[in-house]
Amino acid sequence: MLIVLQKKNDQTLITHIQELLQRKYDADSHIIGQNKRVIAVPGDTMNIDVELLRSLEGVLSVDRVHRPYKLASRQQKDRTTIRLHDACTIGNREQCVVIAGPCSVESEGQLDETAAYVHEQGVNILRGGAFKPRTGPYAFNGLGEKGLQMLRKTADKYGMSVDTEAMSVEQMDLVEEYADIIQIGARNMQNYDLLRRAGKAAKPVLLKRGLSSTLEEWLLAAEYILHEGNPNVILCERGIRTFEQEVRFTLCLGSIPALRELTHLPIIVDPSHSAGKARWVDDCAKAAIAVGADGVIIETHPRPEEALSDGPQSLTEEQFADCQKQMRVIATAMGKKLV
Amino acid sequence: MLIVLQKKNDQTLITHIQELLQRKYDADSHIIGQNKRVIAVPGDTMNIDVELLRSLEGVLSVDRVHRPYKLASRQQKDRTTIRLHDACTIGNREQCVVIAGPCSVESEGQLDETAAYVHEQGVNILRGGAFKPRTGPYAFNGLGEKGLQMLRKTADKYGMSVDTEAMSVEQMDLVEEYADIIQIGARNMQNYDLLRRAGKAAKPVLLKRGLSSTLEEWLLAAEYILHEGNPNVILCERGIRTFEQEVRFTLCLGSIPALRELTHLPIIVDPSHSAGKARWVDDCAKAAIAVGADGVIIETHPRPEEALSDGPQSLTEEQFADCQKQMRVIATAMGKKLV
Amino acid sequence: MLIVLQKKNDQTLITHIQELLQRKYDADSHIIGQNKRVIAVPGDTMNIDVELLRSLEGVLSVDRVHRPYKLASRQQKDRTTIRLHDACTIGNREQCVVIAGPCSVESEGQLDETAAYVHEQGVNILRGGAFKPRTGPYAFNGLGEKGLQMLRKTADKYGMSVDTEAMSVEQMDLVEEYADIIQIGARNMQNYDLLRRAGKAAKPVLLKRGLSSTLEEWLLAAEYILHEGNPNVILCERGIRTFEQEVRFTLCLGSIPALRELTHLPIIVDPSHSAGKARWVDDCAKAAIAVGADGVIIETHPRPEEALSDGPQSLTEEQFADCQKQMRVIATAMGKKLV
Amino acid sequence: MLIVLQKKNDQTLITHIQELLQRKYDADSHIIGQNKRVIAVPGDTMNIDVELLRSLEGVLSVDRVHRPYKLASRQQKDRTTIRLHDACTIGNREQCVVIAGPCSVESEGQLDETAAYVHEQGVNILRGGAFKPRTGPYAFNGLGEKGLQMLRKTADKYGMSVDTEAMSVEQMDLVEEYADIIQIGARNMQNYDLLRRAGKAAKPVLLKRGLSSTLEEWLLAAEYILHEGNPNVILCERGIRTFEQEVRFTLCLGSIPALRELTHLPIIVDPSHSAGKARWVDDCAKAAIAVGADGVIIETHPRPEEALSDGPQSLTEEQFADCQKQMRVIATAMGKKLV
Repeated sequence: MLIVLQKKNDQTLITHIQELLQRKYDADSHIIGQNKRVIAVPGDTMNIDVELLRSLEGVLSVDRVHRPYKLASRQQKDRTTIRLHDACTIGNREQCVVIAGPCSVESEGQLDETAAYVHEQGVNILRGGAFKPRTGPYAFNGLGEKGLQMLRKTADKYGMSVDTEAMSVEQMDLVEEYADIIQIGARNMQNYDLLRRAGKAAKPVLLKRGLSSTLEEWLLAAEYILHEGNPNVILCERGIRTFEQEVRFTLCLGSIPALRELTHLPIIVDPSHSAGKARWVDDCAKAAIAVGADGVIIETHPRPEEALSDGPQSLTEEQFADCQKQMRVIATAMGKKLV
Repeated sequence: MLIVLQKKNDQTLITHIQELLQRKYDADSHIIGQNKRVIAVPGDTMNIDVELLRSLEGVLSVDRVHRPYKLASRQQKDRTTIRLHDACTIGNREQCVVIAGPCSVESEGQLDETAAYVHEQGVNILRGGAFKPRTGPYAFNGLGEKGLQMLRKTADKYGMSVDTEAMSVEQMDLVEEYADIIQIGARNMQNYDLLRRAGKAAKPVLLKRGLSSTLEEWLLAAEYILHEGNPNVILCERGIRTFEQEVRFTLCLGSIPALRELTHLPIIVDPSHSAGKARWVDDCAKAAIAVGADGVIIETHPRPEEALSDGPQSLTEEQFADCQKQMRVIATAMGKKLV
Repeated sequence: MLIVLQKKNDQTLITHIQELLQRKYDADSHIIGQNKRVIAVPGDTMNIDVELLRSLEGVLSVDRVHRPYKLASRQQKDRTTIRLHDACTIGNREQCVVIAGPCSVESEGQLDETAAYVHEQGVNILRGGAFKPRTGPYAFNGLGEKGLQMLRKTADKYGMSVDTEAMSVEQMDLVEEYADIIQIGARNMQNYDLLRRAGKAAKPVLLKRGLSSTLEEWLLAAEYILHEGNPNVILCERGIRTFEQEVRFTLCLGSIPALRELTHLPIIVDPSHSAGKARWVDDCAKAAIAVGADGVIIETHPRPEEALSDGPQSLTEEQFADCQKQMRVIATAMGKKLV
Repeated sequence: MLIVLQKKNDQTLITHIQELLQRKYDADSHIIGQNKRVIAVPGDTMNIDVELLRSLEGVLSVDRVHRPYKLASRQQKDRTTIRLHDACTIGNREQCVVIAGPCSVESEGQLDETAAYVHEQGVNILRGGAFKPRTGPYAFNGLGEKGLQMLRKTADKYGMSVDTEAMSVEQMDLVEEYADIIQIGARNMQNYDLLRRAGKAAKPVLLKRGLSSTLEEWLLAAEYILHEGNPNVILCERGIRTFEQEVRFTLCLGSIPALRELTHLPIIVDPSHSAGKARWVDDCAKAAIAVGADGVIIETHPRPEEALSDGPQSLTEEQFADCQKQMRVIATAMGKKLV
């Protein structure tokens, strides 16, 4: 860490900062240069509060040499790949993974019907919510364990993996039991107890980006999970909140190449929640693949108008088949196999 | 609810929508006008998915006559007032309440020292975190129950009330036992299990606005709490995330008069987290009082540089005394008593 | 236009609104339905201030049947195509157009060198700024007319078209003389005198989206140009300002399919300004093509470090060649020819 | 300027950067410290492109010792005060200035009526638009010179100063002739030709903040004006564009204390455009005064419903009188006189 001072040779401030670093963080530091304008703090400075140093009068800037996360950092390794089953690995450079299914599990019939056609289209991972976070208290909030059982049963029937959300620590045991991928939603991205519990799970975690999270906050959330011992975190960009209201959320595809430099974790994209309208999903999905995402997660429902949640953005069977076809063309152009 | 169609006399669409409303929501509806362009759905339409109707081809717009929350709505009552103790009521038009204390409870000495001077300055509610949500896993995350005990003991010594945060359902029993106000942080504003549990608590809940929450989402979060039977929710504006980075968060004071029309719940403001710098807190606090807030919540620490969290925005004793003095002048000008 | 009232049979409000519409806008209106809750205003309501009606007490909502622009609207026609020369048409479904060149024209040598390699890569339109809008007054602001002359001469040498920016009405005569496409920058998107002047130009106008413009504001800016008689407007998405700071601007690719439904105008994307870093430009450019844009505009410089503006985001010759190759693969997959 | 490198003793990079600085900016530099990790560039570095240096591989950070503006900087002087007439000085610590009047000048009658009542309420500066920037081409765009003449005549009748907007360089001669304060609107904040022309004017300039401008961009826009020789710039915060749509723009009051540290220029606030609704203006105006603004600018109209622009946010005579009364109470509490 390098602390740059506004004035040269400000001995009082230098002493103050060096003592503070020693006392509060047990951190050694030394002055560099004759003008005594830069204080260097060598070693691991993860626990030092950069904002505190920045707020001291007379400090011009404070620069970390390393980002405030370690395990999620690209400096750690090049790529994390997560093998789900024989046909499907997330994060390698050869496959583009599609996760598809209904927003909510509503009934065995609805789920089976959906699983049947997404599987026929080549999808290996079935999504579906058994516990649903809903903006207001008057909406359908999922079938709970019964929904999880349906997911497992249906996925097994078609030889698929299951991706489903856990909204709280209490639900985690159940979700861990039935799911192959544990999803953490955007609104829970900074639910730290939930992150810690996910870090103890034996299953990969799909961590959605918070609606207004910076990349750093997102990677720090991933760090919570990694730090507890679970190395398998999949990041999912799902659109951020901006002034633009014509689309539901602003899909931040520019962050994908930026993330690639910061982290080794796989990155997938959710075009459904960002578009908010079924007929815009295919274009956004293609863009996600072209920007280099490791996969996409897409909502589909046999009869979107009857859906108990997210109907407007759910693709029909026909739309899904068409989307899959379009995505495959782009994936192929990118030298990847759509699985 | 009124559904406006793009074309006149579009009988196929009208039939489709009326059947959908009946089948899915058991809702009666009727056409109004000769041109058959508007479908009215009378009664309580809280459970109808507006977005779904909007997404149907041929629908121009859908307007709710009522907002999607009931209990939090101003139509319910004029003002909720929450009496904490003899000297201090939140939400009446006569008092402007100050909640003050350290970001985190660090030790008995630190807490007592802080409580002593804020109490001397006329403050009746002591804040302090025992469970701390931290962006990264490597930071101090609170003393837990020991912190709660210190808060209770110290507050009792000075005859103060306690405001402290519960980050998860698990912590709620403990927090409910020790606190007079249960705080729910910005990052947990849409942690629905936590909201539901808070709705069963016997203590008032201070609900911070999420970093990127609309007023409607915020009031729907309050609705979760009210819906479980807890009528005492205090809203706390703490700044939203915008492109502006010179301040930590953009304090959205214009939302206060807007909220007054939407809800009967008391509204306080947190100038500390939005300013991010101690020396800007007083100006923002005065603005909050002048815009009509029912109170403010302010972070202070005897030695901000030693603080284990939020040091840069914590006022020293001297700064706090000065801020309190300035706030009192504005409160008086507003015809309110600063308590 | 449909005006929905909060209460039924509110005769005073109805009379008030109907008189206001008559007096202020000379607009007839009639009540629809027995409950007298909806007032309809038939015909062209472009000049009626929706916000004013919305602000009246007792008005629940006001819906336009049409958007507030006419000429830019998709209802006008399906697609505008702009033929630049034999090899290159913007807005048809068969070509994906690349506009490339340096941010600023710096010298004849620099420009010729750049034109040579972009032309060799198949580019038909040369970009380059002769008048440069710069955030601060101390930066290089272009060679002026000399720059325009160099652009023309160089483009003619390689048989290319010229795209260059006019920052003000005064510069417009000159720019119109030398350019084939007149560019209006993001910061000038609501410079209405400039828009009107561009509307009188005989050349196509490339209109960049303002940093914080909604799609409606953008299309209204286009409407200014169209309204003056110039039918050839090309929209250019270049990223919006959001809280995300890791990338320079947030490229809003989701707006492309949304725009397609609203307007017949061609839409291109500027990955250079949004990425802000040369090494992220190719990924963003591919995403732009995959989402369905009619083209891209890319900054390149033989020696980015020597560039007098936008060096960090300018591709080297080698990077440009590679980007072009990658874009071509995606364009081909999309069934388009990269020209 | 201090350039911090990622690695120690990276001699190739050091040489490269030092040569680049020399060649491109004629800037001397030297290494500081034994580890050779920091390069210092002494003196005025205003013309050096920080982003370019940041984009070089191996560079960790680049810090300017000074912000990229000089003349607008607080380092230049403590406070700029602008004396308009005997009763009214903007920017001193004793007065809080009110600028009031209609959005647009519509007729002599409307203007005189408004001037009469705002003057009676103690206002010394009359606002009114003769040239109106309008989002779409179909709206009223002002009376032009006739409007300016009415403004001058009416203001003279009541002994008031005139504040009115110039939208383009062409209008500047006229506006300069009739106005006492030349207003530059939010959409023109980065219209650099206009800024340069305003810098040559003999009248003070009121520079509104762009909808999505950072404080730095805003001060750089002011720098353009100052740099041409006009020392009298008044900054006007008018709300920024964020995801929050309940209010028209998000008034960023927290930026006022931040600006005070950065600049010596006076700062006023526009509560009308940010609130967007007349009934919220008074609360926002009080907050602006309490946060320490040097004044406010408020829209008022004898009959808001008849207003040709900005009716919804225009105060009636009665509302204005009440707002003025409330503002006076807060100004007095702040130790200032409302003029």
